[in-house]
Amino acid sequence: MKRLHIHSATYTTFAASTLALIISSHAMAGTVTTDGPDITIKTKGGFEAAAVDQSFSFKLGGRIQADFDQFDGVYTKNGKSANEAYFRRAILELSGTAYHDWKYAFNLDFAEDGSSKWDEASITYTGFKPVKVKVGRFDPDFGLEKATSSKWISTIERSIIYDAGEWVNDKQDGMGVQVSGTSGMFYGSAGINRAKNNEDDNGSNNNTYNMRAVVAPMAEAGNVLHFGVNYAKRSTEDFDGRIRSRMGVRGTTEDSKNGNRPTFASSQAGQFDSDSAWGLEAAYALGPFSAQSEYLRRDISAKSGSALKDRQVDGYNLQLAYTLTGESRGYKLDGGKFDSIKPSNKQTGAWELVYRYDHLTVADADMDITGSFYDTKAKVHTMGVNWYANDAVKVSANYLKAKTDQVANAANDDSGDAISLRVQYAF
Amino acid sequence: MKRLHIHSATYTTFAASTLALIISSHAMAGTVTTDGPDITIKTKGGFEAAAVDQSFSFKLGGRIQADFDQFDGVYTKNGKSANEAYFRRAILELSGTAYHDWKYAFNLDFAEDGSSKWDEASITYTGFKPVKVKVGRFDPDFGLEKATSSKWISTIERSIIYDAGEWVNDKQDGMGVQVSGTSGMFYGSAGINRAKNNEDDNGSNNNTYNMRAVVAPMAEAGNVLHFGVNYAKRSTEDFDGRIRSRMGVRGTTEDSKNGNRPTFASSQAGQFDSDSAWGLEAAYALGPFSAQSEYLRRDISAKSGSALKDRQVDGYNLQLAYTLTGESRGYKLDGGKFDSIKPSNKQTGAWELVYRYDHLTVADADMDITGSFYDTKAKVHTMGVNWYANDAVKVSANYLKAKTDQVANAANDDSGDAISLRVQYAF
Amino acid sequence: MKRLHIHSATYTTFAASTLALIISSHAMAGTVTTDGPDITIKTKGGFEAAAVDQSFSFKLGGRIQADFDQFDGVYTKNGKSANEAYFRRAILELSGTAYHDWKYAFNLDFAEDGSSKWDEASITYTGFKPVKVKVGRFDPDFGLEKATSSKWISTIERSIIYDAGEWVNDKQDGMGVQVSGTSGMFYGSAGINRAKNNEDDNGSNNNTYNMRAVVAPMAEAGNVLHFGVNYAKRSTEDFDGRIRSRMGVRGTTEDSKNGNRPTFASSQAGQFDSDSAWGLEAAYALGPFSAQSEYLRRDISAKSGSALKDRQVDGYNLQLAYTLTGESRGYKLDGGKFDSIKPSNKQTGAWELVYRYDHLTVADADMDITGSFYDTKAKVHTMGVNWYANDAVKVSANYLKAKTDQVANAANDDSGDAISLRVQYAF
Repeated sequence: MKRLHIHSATYTTFAASTLALIISSHAMAGTVTTDGPDITIKTKGGFEAAAVDQSFSFKLGGRIQADFDQFDGVYTKNGKSANEAYFRRAILELSGTAYHDWKYAFNLDFAEDGSSKWDEASITYTGFKPVKVKVGRFDPDFGLEKATSSKWISTIERSIIYDAGEWVNDKQDGMGVQVSGTSGMFYGSAGINRAKNNEDDNGSNNNTYNMRAVVAPMAEAGNVLHFGVNYAKRSTEDFDGRIRSRMGVRGTTEDSKNGNRPTFASSQAGQFDSDSAWGLEAAYALGPFSAQSEYLRRDISAKSGSALKDRQVDGYNLQLAYTLTGESRGYKLDGGKFDSIKPSNKQTGAWELVYRYDHLTVADADMDITGSFYDTKAKVHTMGVNWYANDAVKVSANYLKAKTDQVANAANDDSGDAISLRVQYAF
Repeated sequence: MKRLHIHSATYTTFAASTLALIISSHAMAGTVTTDGPDITIKTKGGFEAAAVDQSFSFKLGGRIQADFDQFDGVYTKNGKSANEAYFRRAILELSGTAYHDWKYAFNLDFAEDGSSKWDEASITYTGFKPVKVKVGRFDPDFGLEKATSSKWISTIERSIIYDAGEWVNDKQDGMGVQVSGTSGMFYGSAGINRAKNNEDDNGSNNNTYNMRAVVAPMAEAGNVLHFGVNYAKRSTEDFDGRIRSRMGVRGTTEDSKNGNRPTFASSQAGQFDSDSAWGLEAAYALGPFSAQSEYLRRDISAKSGSALKDRQVDGYNLQLAYTLTGESRGYKLDGGKFDSIKPSNKQTGAWELVYRYDHLTVADADMDITGSFYDTKAKVHTMGVNWYANDAVKVSANYLKAKTDQVANAANDDSGDAISLRVQYAF
Repeated sequence: MKRLHIHSATYTTFAASTLALIISSHAMAGTVTTDGPDITIKTKGGFEAAAVDQSFSFKLGGRIQADFDQFDGVYTKNGKSANEAYFRRAILELSGTAYHDWKYAFNLDFAEDGSSKWDEASITYTGFKPVKVKVGRFDPDFGLEKATSSKWISTIERSIIYDAGEWVNDKQDGMGVQVSGTSGMFYGSAGINRAKNNEDDNGSNNNTYNMRAVVAPMAEAGNVLHFGVNYAKRSTEDFDGRIRSRMGVRGTTEDSKNGNRPTFASSQAGQFDSDSAWGLEAAYALGPFSAQSEYLRRDISAKSGSALKDRQVDGYNLQLAYTLTGESRGYKLDGGKFDSIKPSNKQTGAWELVYRYDHLTVADADMDITGSFYDTKAKVHTMGVNWYANDAVKVSANYLKAKTDQVANAANDDSGDAISLRVQYAF
């Protein structure tokens, strides 16, 4: 009994002094509690609050991408060197969960011109596990690089093969429904999207249908083997079949004075009546090294009776990336996409080198003076370096070398060079 | 003394082990404190932080309403079936309190077209209890259904009787001051609003005056007896007197190709000089059942010497709603309005049926070829079902049947049908 | 030993009951923890979360400024009294820190017309202490009153001397880089900014260069002695040299019907080729009293061969302010600027009186009919009272008396009066 008393005394003193500490700290600092399930909060520049039991969550973050481009040759109208400083994206991102299975994402892209486009405005139900149902505005699922966040792609801009057709994986101010699911080494999605103002004469909206299937026998950071196939079709009866490309330099359209966005197939209203695309994707990652390649084909059918031929757009790319500081690119099977590089050293950060080759051709793009159809072509080499200063800040520099065939600017240039710089803050 | 020792030991052991628990959990998880009064935080998809002593608070939430409409007949220009998918509202809502009595609300509605309208931007002083003084942008107070949040009205769209005059209870990009108060079974408000760009030739703004008085002998969820009277007048010397109605289907104006928003009285500039409206409201709720009815009358006086007659707009409605799962609609005397239905079962949710009849007439609307004035009329039946999946998610389906008199579309249809669907996420 | 036992018992009882309290409060209220460094949160209407070790932070706040102006004479087109109620600013402000040294600010000004301008969108690196490097969109640094937040200047609008040239300290939808630093009694900044769409024929952007140096031997609230010098130059070859001024009343441009913003030098395209400005600033504060004065000169050089002369714009002001309730204006050497007045009594608030005299002249502004050049001039007296109800709410009233020389409205008025009111909520 005596021993117990001593113990008691010992514990008690400990308890008392600790309590004194807690209480005194409470005297200076107010308490923070919640009236529901326990909550964990965090800030890494943005803010998150999530119930420990995952029933509820709230997250507020965003991204700022400040870009500078210097470009010449076919990238400009007169071939002389132009430059442009602009915000590529300035997105405020809100997302959350209610009652475990109901999620929303509300991402607002505030453009320089004063408009505020929704990068996403969607509601997702995750209760039919492993299937998710999403409704609202979001980008249709097509292609590995498109699936990867603009924050974490390896180059400053995505591949020019996506210029084959914007509708293939862009929301186009529309709305849609998507079903997706992940099981074992498989991920798949199927969706319907309705582009804004794309409707028939009675005001009935046309649809875009998308499907994507991914198999990834290896699906974790630094250990990726990924294959994917995509298909998209749209039921529109009236489109102009124009193919344009910025060839990897956004400044070409930001610079209204001298920027050039070459046309690889001219706009021809009322000549086409069927539009579809399919794509292949493959990726491999081993530790700090990653390789990825995509193929995209779009088939534009001329109306019967049209003087034009069917247009066939073919694009492929190959990208190699290597993190000098040893970190691996993240990977998520749910979504079939690469994710961020998290630098081991948050002071010196991570350094990554990247090279990509892009190739885009349009077969039977247009007619020449003699009445015969010709093909157009674009080739772009991109060399880049990324500095991931920490989880929030990324600084990128790209050098691009472009060459076109049967397409030129006003000064008859069919090649051009560009340097792009980006400072990115993801909060 | 010995007993005390034993007690001490017992308590102490308890204290020590509990402390060990607290301390160990603190070792893994960082502490969250505040440097002011104690704070309670919560997330239900959005986020709230409020001082326990109610001196300060902050709330960030919002609503996403994704709609789909299919409609034909008089709802379209050519009478054929049109459809439209669109976001009805995508609002980010910030509000807060400083020093007990100073409140703000800053609600931004991000429209699809890239603009960002303020649903509200107001500052309220609550120190003169029970009176509140509000300044800034907010909707003038007129009518029970308008007072009720768009999140918690029973049908997808509000009654067509409000189409009698937008200025009656819409802010019209203006600013105003409002005094309101609640006492016993009474609620009342009086306000002045200045619609944007509604001014005289010297640039002096015209005013809109609003008054509303509510008495509710029964004023709690499931037990409501509510009567209200409203009056509004505007001091504008130049308005066109046009009456249009979407007849309960927003898609009619979202669909620019074939949507039809019939005109019930034509625009006639410089012919009218006095404009006022008054309204009555009544509501009753008993458990899961609720009934409400509103009457609105607008008097548009023709200028002396005008060839036109005074226009008189009369509207009334009757709405019945029943919650199959037994929940009652919320009610708030402060504001004189219905509130949300909170489903008892957050998995299966609450199910509500609703029916509304709307009637709108314009007397002496316009002149026919023979020079005699005629009346126009609209009648709409709305049947609906609401699924409140949980406190955050509501899914609604409405069927509408409309009939017009002396008003038709280009194909001479004077009736039409519509189906409206909505998915709503309130975070 | 017995004494110890007694102590033990005493402490234990205390410990146990305190624990019981903590535990019971935990039983009702969930815990809030973080998975990183300890966090302090606070709300004063807005919301802040910051790691105690200052590694990370997040802040969401904003400001609403609701204004009303009544004005006549030269402030209007026809000289008759006009008025306008409008929101001067409605800004949502996000800012944060990641990994100690990386900061961002993303301030969105939601205008009444539905556009959303960025008041700021910048990334700052603070690692090269005491030097800061900022990139993105922000106002160029020029002048004491411009450096002071619009929330905490003493009058409703800033001095008319800044109307000498908007580019001097306005971002003009551009982007830039700025280096700044504070050391001892010195603060300085140097920056380059590129105004949107101000570029040469090849699409190469023109630059604006800014420099500011401040020395403040006394640099704390209520004890300020501040001197500053500013220089700005822009490398644009094509500007119209127009000088306009709202003369301290924003309503003049908000009221599109009858508001008048006089032109002090006409727009003359292609006549000027060099543009620079310099400025001086001085301020003194002793307890509740503060005095400040600024001088600004802009030199606009006519092209050789132009029929126009060089234009020289001179502006100066003097402002006196006194806080009746005794509080001092805050001051920050980092940024060389005044800060808020924090009322001692959060119920009755602080009361401040202010007077400012503004003087602006344009030498050789334009040619008269006889071919000789004349000077134009504006003088404005502003008397004001500010009520700082608490740290969040400020109510201001200003009376302005303006007089022009060689400039008049359509009714030939060369003087005018105005009353401005503002309610401000800073959350």
